[in-house]
Amino acid sequence: MSILLKNARILTMVDGEGIREGDVLIDGDTISYVGEKAPRQDYEKVIDCEKNLLMPGFKNAHAHSAMSFARSISDDLPLQKWLYDKIFPIEAKITPEDQYHLSKVSILEYLSSGITSCFDMYYNPMMMAKASIDTGFRSVMLGTATRYRENVKTMVDDYKAINGLNNPLVSYILGFHAEYTADEGMLIELSKAAHELHSPIFTHTSETPSEVEACKDRHHGLTPTEYMDSLGLFDYGGGGFHCVAFSKHDIEIYKKHGLSIVTCPGSNSKLASGIAPLSDFVAAGLNLAIGTDGAGSNNGLDFFYEMRLACVLQKLLLGKSEAFDGSLALKAATIGGAKAMGLNDCLYLKEGQKADIIMIDLSRPNMQPLNNIEKNIVYSGAKDDVKMSMVGGKILYMDGIFHLDEDIHSIYDRAQQITDRIKG
Amino acid sequence: MSILLKNARILTMVDGEGIREGDVLIDGDTISYVGEKAPRQDYEKVIDCEKNLLMPGFKNAHAHSAMSFARSISDDLPLQKWLYDKIFPIEAKITPEDQYHLSKVSILEYLSSGITSCFDMYYNPMMMAKASIDTGFRSVMLGTATRYRENVKTMVDDYKAINGLNNPLVSYILGFHAEYTADEGMLIELSKAAHELHSPIFTHTSETPSEVEACKDRHHGLTPTEYMDSLGLFDYGGGGFHCVAFSKHDIEIYKKHGLSIVTCPGSNSKLASGIAPLSDFVAAGLNLAIGTDGAGSNNGLDFFYEMRLACVLQKLLLGKSEAFDGSLALKAATIGGAKAMGLNDCLYLKEGQKADIIMIDLSRPNMQPLNNIEKNIVYSGAKDDVKMSMVGGKILYMDGIFHLDEDIHSIYDRAQQITDRIKG
Repeated sequence: MSILLKNARILTMVDGEGIREGDVLIDGDTISYVGEKAPRQDYEKVIDCEKNLLMPGFKNAHAHSAMSFARSISDDLPLQKWLYDKIFPIEAKITPEDQYHLSKVSILEYLSSGITSCFDMYYNPMMMAKASIDTGFRSVMLGTATRYRENVKTMVDDYKAINGLNNPLVSYILGFHAEYTADEGMLIELSKAAHELHSPIFTHTSETPSEVEACKDRHHGLTPTEYMDSLGLFDYGGGGFHCVAFSKHDIEIYKKHGLSIVTCPGSNSKLASGIAPLSDFVAAGLNLAIGTDGAGSNNGLDFFYEMRLACVLQKLLLGKSEAFDGSLALKAATIGGAKAMGLNDCLYLKEGQKADIIMIDLSRPNMQPLNNIEKNIVYSGAKDDVKMSMVGGKILYMDGIFHLDEDIHSIYDRAQQITDRIKG
Repeated sequence: MSILLKNARILTMVDGEGIREGDVLIDGDTISYVGEKAPRQDYEKVIDCEKNLLMPGFKNAHAHSAMSFARSISDDLPLQKWLYDKIFPIEAKITPEDQYHLSKVSILEYLSSGITSCFDMYYNPMMMAKASIDTGFRSVMLGTATRYRENVKTMVDDYKAINGLNNPLVSYILGFHAEYTADEGMLIELSKAAHELHSPIFTHTSETPSEVEACKDRHHGLTPTEYMDSLGLFDYGGGGFHCVAFSKHDIEIYKKHGLSIVTCPGSNSKLASGIAPLSDFVAAGLNLAIGTDGAGSNNGLDFFYEMRLACVLQKLLLGKSEAFDGSLALKAATIGGAKAMGLNDCLYLKEGQKADIIMIDLSRPNMQPLNNIEKNIVYSGAKDDVKMSMVGGKILYMDGIFHLDEDIHSIYDRAQQITDRIKG
């Protein structure tokens, strides 16, 4: 299908281009024209953007989409109680089919927040791949091996199965849950697999200072990053989620391998883990991305909240209102996320890139006056500004309505039934 | 007009009542029935709430509504540069008529975030009173005397003029900008006026540690709160905005006079002022309210962001995920704000109270599954969940559409013209 999005403001996110006015043309799942005036007007679908803003969709670079069941079941509890008394026992009851249905709730939520792809870490990744394909959403699935569950062989199978689908909406990268749930044999095996497949590796890392201390105790004073690096886990790139308690040497290791930092400010603050030193990461030239984490810890999966929070926490951390310019958050939320996830055809709103585009409604009061639209998005933006979310050239969300094959109430009802069953 | 809101979930905010199902009936500007089934069905307007949630609207207890012009003109700058090079010079060019128009943009934004009243501090308060009346919004105006501008006599005149309107949508309370912009003669005169009028007094206070230190230097080691108390300013109640750098003795003084704390987490974090010790305030039994501050510092005026941020910043401050339960933020955002503003007929969704009611759309994905609706509102809630905002029995916002006498684009155009003029 060809779609003409005309009469728009366009934020390409290409460095230095700023915001221009014009048309965007989409053929199939790809952007075929960005400029002042589309060459023809006879496209299958023509949308007058009425000078609203088109920009690349947000990339949610850390997600556990199937965890929608966990929203608001265990807030305001001590961390250990949250995890061991609430999350783990309920999680143990989930079937792969449950995951498929539960993930769809998160996909709806992503679309309503202008998120057009996610980096999803959960067991049975084919379930999220299926949910993504069935809803038209783009996801990169990630291995989540631990010493208890999902071994390296399973991951290699998933790698081949999901990447073998040859569906541009889904792909798979190797990963493991965390240093503290791994054992060395497994990590060595994983490192071998990464070398064979030339796959990056991502993991939860350095989420709290105590996690880092415990790792040092176990591994001759090495931080999680130093330890992982010593096993060759990052020889084909990758990166870490959270990265709150990061040392200068950790940053150097990330720099050396070109690794990505995926910060989760909403989750880290709600669980009182701390504030990641984002300004240091940026100063070191690391690729920075943003993730919501799962609904069990955060609980809303909203990129406007995450961008704004990322900025203001840096200002608080450094005691300077000028710290961490809002434009850094916008870049992390779009280009940074796409780079981390290996979605190099989803970096910009530009000819030849995938048509993962959102429209920001500039006629909402929080966007007025139009002094600085980029800063409006970061510091005043909210979900009610998302007028459209398009993935791969398909409009999945517009004016508050979801355009999926399945009715949203059927998705909600199924998720509620599953949640009631596993909570019981 | 009589309106029946039927088939709803109802969060009355009355302690211990939780969420019930039933109908709400409104006659004129007042709630006339809350219960399982309305006594009749022949009302002028009947709305089927389809099991969505009705609750009291949010009370924005610290606002500078006319400052919508300042959104995104000066982000990510050092504090002094922000204030002296950007905000003050532009602000100096605003006329009272400008204020009237600029305030309307903020009122629209409040309604889109479920805010049904605000505590507005700005010069020429009759302009905001007029904007409130003309849009149907509820505001409490506050004096903002400084040694440079707006003296006590002006405030007494405003007090009589605005309260003399006898319009339930608007009222006026005495206030001054801050200790550091006041002089002692003015404060003594203000204290006298408060005693004569039996008016509470509110002010910006202890926003940063350096403000407190400078006050101590000027006033024999007294904190701003101790100094104000020594002048009898709080003998008829009132309270403070920000209260970031508060001592134990400051808290005792607030306790003694029954004063309210109005916290502004969005503004305090964006300006790197610090984190107010909300948990200490609550432990001391102080009335806690929440404010957005103005669009120049925050910049979005969104109560979902403020509630969630208030909670997570306390968790970070105390290093405990169990710190500051989400229900405290919900209470501060509704009852706490109404108490601070003296709106004792806007505390609850209850018979006899003003019909300042919002409807939360529970069929948005971020509200699913329905494990705990109150926690959903605080930790996953967002502006796209606001299905309706009603003030004084009038629906001012529903399904994304504003129901005002004036077209929103005319409000935006006027605000943009004014902004362009005063920025130039």
